[in-house]
Amino acid sequence: MKFTLIVSLLLLTSVLTVLGQDKQSRKSKGHSSAVSEKGLIKVSVMYPFSEGKTFNMAYYESKHMPMVAAWLGDNLVKYTIEKGVASGIPNQPLPYMAIGIFYIKNLEEYQKAIAPNRDAIRADFPNYTDVAPVILVSEVVR
Amino acid sequence: MKFTLIVSLLLLTSVLTVLGQDKQSRKSKGHSSAVSEKGLIKVSVMYPFSEGKTFNMAYYESKHMPMVAAWLGDNLVKYTIEKGVASGIPNQPLPYMAIGIFYIKNLEEYQKAIAPNRDAIRADFPNYTDVAPVILVSEVVR
Repeated sequence: MKFTLIVSLLLLTSVLTVLGQDKQSRKSKGHSSAVSEKGLIKVSVMYPFSEGKTFNMAYYESKHMPMVAAWLGDNLVKYTIEKGVASGIPNQPLPYMAIGIFYIKNLEEYQKAIAPNRDAIRADFPNYTDVAPVILVSEVVR
Repeated sequence: MKFTLIVSLLLLTSVLTVLGQDKQSRKSKGHSSAVSEKGLIKVSVMYPFSEGKTFNMAYYESKHMPMVAAWLGDNLVKYTIEKGVASGIPNQPLPYMAIGIFYIKNLEEYQKAIAPNRDAIRADFPNYTDVAPVILVSEVVR
């Protein structure tokens, strides 16, 4: 009787441990891209397509975006990068070659973090593109 | 001994049931916005700002987007709606008033689902805006 009780308690403990780790792993996902966006501020840096203009995605992904992201600290919830494929309207040109998006909690904090680094950001542009981006600040409502 | 075994098995079963429900509830979250975006296709419907033009966000959020989303079925992973706040570049006009984004698995399936409903989508435009959208199809690379 005692032995069965011990075995069953051990079993129960191991199951609860697995359950706990499972919850933990979901919690730590908060900093990956698997977070709800509602209520966040988006800063979308959009690089317009135009014939003959270039964009180096490898550099943008490995150097430029991580550099800017590092300046944003805890205010940055996540960032995403997308590659323009086509216009969604037949026979229309591709609107943007690439978009980098910072999902942040607070716009003022973002501006404070970016201001002293604006020149460094601009100086990095020629390393990956020859177009000037359009930048949209928006609020995720759903 | 038999009694303890039965009690411990019951306990174990109930813990496993809780664990199972927990996994299930996370699975069903696939349709909320808390999913990783990498590898997905984004269809971004962007409504340009221009002086005097209007956009009815309440109608867009409660009627237009749910209508289109319903046509996309299982191909739709999630959709988001954002409200343009400002340009991220000082002294530049707001680029877009609003953006609706469908995150889908397959572009061909999306086009097949939208094609027979294109007229209904266009007919709904005047119910919430007087501008024509720019539509970008892109691939989430990070």
